[in-house]
Amino acid sequence: MLTRLVERHPKAARYILPLLVSSMIISIPAYANSGAAEGHGGAIPLTFLWLAVLFTLSKLGTLIERIGQPSVLGEIIVGVILGNLGLLGLHWFDPAATNQYLLFLAEFGVVLLLFRIGLESNIKEMSKVGAQAFLVAIIGVVIPFLAGTYLVGELFYADVDLGTKLFIGAAMTATSVGITARVFQDLGKLNTKEAKIVLGAAVIDDIMGLLILAIVSSIATSGTLEASTVAILSAKAFGFLVAAIAVGQLAAPWLGKLFSSVHTGVGMKLTFAISFALLVAYLASAVGLAPIVGAFAAGLVLDPVHFKSFKSPEYVSKIKKKLEPLGEKSEDAAALLHGFDHKHIEDLVDTVGHLFIPLFFVMTGLQVKLDVLFDPKVLGVALIVTAIAFIGKVMAGLGTWGGTKKMIVGFGMVPRGEVGLIFANVGMALGVVTDELFSVIVVMVILTTLLTPPILTYLLKKDDKKAA
Amino acid sequence: MLTRLVERHPKAARYILPLLVSSMIISIPAYANSGAAEGHGGAIPLTFLWLAVLFTLSKLGTLIERIGQPSVLGEIIVGVILGNLGLLGLHWFDPAATNQYLLFLAEFGVVLLLFRIGLESNIKEMSKVGAQAFLVAIIGVVIPFLAGTYLVGELFYADVDLGTKLFIGAAMTATSVGITARVFQDLGKLNTKEAKIVLGAAVIDDIMGLLILAIVSSIATSGTLEASTVAILSAKAFGFLVAAIAVGQLAAPWLGKLFSSVHTGVGMKLTFAISFALLVAYLASAVGLAPIVGAFAAGLVLDPVHFKSFKSPEYVSKIKKKLEPLGEKSEDAAALLHGFDHKHIEDLVDTVGHLFIPLFFVMTGLQVKLDVLFDPKVLGVALIVTAIAFIGKVMAGLGTWGGTKKMIVGFGMVPRGEVGLIFANVGMALGVVTDELFSVIVVMVILTTLLTPPILTYLLKKDDKKAA
Repeated sequence: MLTRLVERHPKAARYILPLLVSSMIISIPAYANSGAAEGHGGAIPLTFLWLAVLFTLSKLGTLIERIGQPSVLGEIIVGVILGNLGLLGLHWFDPAATNQYLLFLAEFGVVLLLFRIGLESNIKEMSKVGAQAFLVAIIGVVIPFLAGTYLVGELFYADVDLGTKLFIGAAMTATSVGITARVFQDLGKLNTKEAKIVLGAAVIDDIMGLLILAIVSSIATSGTLEASTVAILSAKAFGFLVAAIAVGQLAAPWLGKLFSSVHTGVGMKLTFAISFALLVAYLASAVGLAPIVGAFAAGLVLDPVHFKSFKSPEYVSKIKKKLEPLGEKSEDAAALLHGFDHKHIEDLVDTVGHLFIPLFFVMTGLQVKLDVLFDPKVLGVALIVTAIAFIGKVMAGLGTWGGTKKMIVGFGMVPRGEVGLIFANVGMALGVVTDELFSVIVVMVILTTLLTPPILTYLLKKDDKKAA
Repeated sequence: MLTRLVERHPKAARYILPLLVSSMIISIPAYANSGAAEGHGGAIPLTFLWLAVLFTLSKLGTLIERIGQPSVLGEIIVGVILGNLGLLGLHWFDPAATNQYLLFLAEFGVVLLLFRIGLESNIKEMSKVGAQAFLVAIIGVVIPFLAGTYLVGELFYADVDLGTKLFIGAAMTATSVGITARVFQDLGKLNTKEAKIVLGAAVIDDIMGLLILAIVSSIATSGTLEASTVAILSAKAFGFLVAAIAVGQLAAPWLGKLFSSVHTGVGMKLTFAISFALLVAYLASAVGLAPIVGAFAAGLVLDPVHFKSFKSPEYVSKIKKKLEPLGEKSEDAAALLHGFDHKHIEDLVDTVGHLFIPLFFVMTGLQVKLDVLFDPKVLGVALIVTAIAFIGKVMAGLGTWGGTKKMIVGFGMVPRGEVGLIFANVGMALGVVTDELFSVIVVMVILTTLLTPPILTYLLKKDDKKAA
């Protein structure tokens, strides 16, 4: 019946069918959670089911492209819907939000994303915008921090400790670069100056965030600031970045040769790239930075040229064989295809990314609990805090020059994502962030995360029109 | 210095360098385990490090191709070496062997492998060898079971309960198809009749194994056999297989259209395939079968034609663009490339598989604890049990006809892998398998797993020479 529907009413099917079937897919976990299914596997096969369901539903996010929005927004919205079915009494997706394997794979996905984005850029291009990125990062940390600590603190939490106010400020400094990077990527704008400035500023922001977290934690717990701790942290973080880029650039050509000396196949090529990304991601986390900062640095360092000693992937030789009947022209064809292989590493990483990157954004959405929006007092305060959070970061765009589109850079810095939540969690653990304040920060994180993609899309498209 | 070595002595470098560097890579976990590295991430970034190390070292397994052995053997050996560094006092890799994320990804890898192998085959081809596969499976279960229960039981464990003897027999019936499938794949023999018979027999074996486990568990615990339990289990398992294949074949074309109605990109294509595989893998586990049996069935059901409504992957259009300077011939080139896209789903699955399939075999190796071989009594009994285990399965090859190479089929059924260990574990949990007997079974599993790849490689290559 459905097959007939697809054939007779292709237009209707195009919109209705995915929704119809997705509602069927959504109900699968209800069966699985009911315990009706008990195999000899336990948690691992059940996670296979989750992956099948979430991989599939994440791709519904692409439907949003039809109204001109980037897929990433669709993926987050899918996650938010699934994560809040509980409001309708359907707690089917609650286990997915806390499934350790899924959280791991999501993290793996965002590492792939930032690695992939790093691959598309290189150190030279980044250093051209280095000064602007630095200024954007500084403004984007200082203004939200001061506004959070003094303005928000004095307005709504006048009677609390300085420690609490400092944590409000700190949570407002964070930048979660994954979302902005995906918006730029989805709209084909990764190679613009604005994208590079935002990426660079986000890396610097992560270092500053690490220091701010150490400083405010120190003040909140002991009331004093241990300068030596902060000095060691800064040295480690900056040392890591310099070392990753310097050593990485020296080692990458050599590593490429080494890996290809073991095997020249396409599997080895991909293994080399992904292992390098994961290693640097781990090293970043070892000095206290976000793994994605390491993954981005790994991508910056690796260049197509480092993969030249690997063989063509199998399909290139298959294609060449298929072109043989062209006769003498087949040599020309082969020549034209030459060089195509070198870029191919990006295709390989993309293939793996097609699965795990959307998973990250769906899982991000799954963590969003909309019920915090139902408390009028929390919502009122949160809306003002969110407005301040927006303004603070948008002003960071002013730290650019030379024709850079300031609004695009500014809005690109807005999403707080998981980084803002980490700050709030640390504050809660230290006892300086109350449940109510935590909710306020969560709402601010939700709104900065959800509103930025459409705003950024609007700005980028308006800019295109002007240019045209 | 090393760069110069590579350039001046390419041959020496080809062999020595990978080993030199691998010894460096091996020592990375020592640093990480020491706790010297404490980031804000914890278990997830540490697993990134493990993945970087294990992905890289797994590829050293390909070095074994230089002495004519399949990579899968190399990957298992890498795992065995790393897993037994403890014998030298280096317990660096012990945490990896029990890391939940790695175990999950390894399981994901073997699901990908069997799915990929299923994709390469189809129901028609499989049903052609169905009768032979069925007979091979029956012989390969009955003979080892009788030999294990009566011969081994009476020889070495004359004074134990029938329950214990039954578990010895049961552990000898298992077939772990992953290893054999990889050997056939590595040597390009997946499309032979022998490979198809072994794959089919392994699926039937898994169902029979499920029933045997239920039967012997029932006898060992209650002393009686609950016929209804066994009947329900068989109905579920056979019902699943029939349903997966029948419903799958009806639904696949429709699902392909449905997914491509949401989006026609290459990411959607891969998501469709992998989600389908994971869903059926889960359903298999829900009826008590191994997830890989489901993944294989999913691959059998899906055919290139189900992917025809997806767009060409981006690189095919890039290639077409690159071929434009060929002028009028470029249309010919495009025509030649037509149809190439359809097969491409196998390339996509392979790309993801390049990472996670070798991980499965390294993790299999990591689980092997060689110290069980050091107890002379255990080793003596185990060697005889192993010999019987080999003979029992090799005799299964006699259940073939029509020019099928009986020895290749027989040896293909030999590896017991993780399935044999599951049986032994259940027996231990029921208290009928002693520590010593467990060790004997472990040695049998190790030897059937490690010795089969070189034997099978030898038989397949000898056969090639005869044909040439």
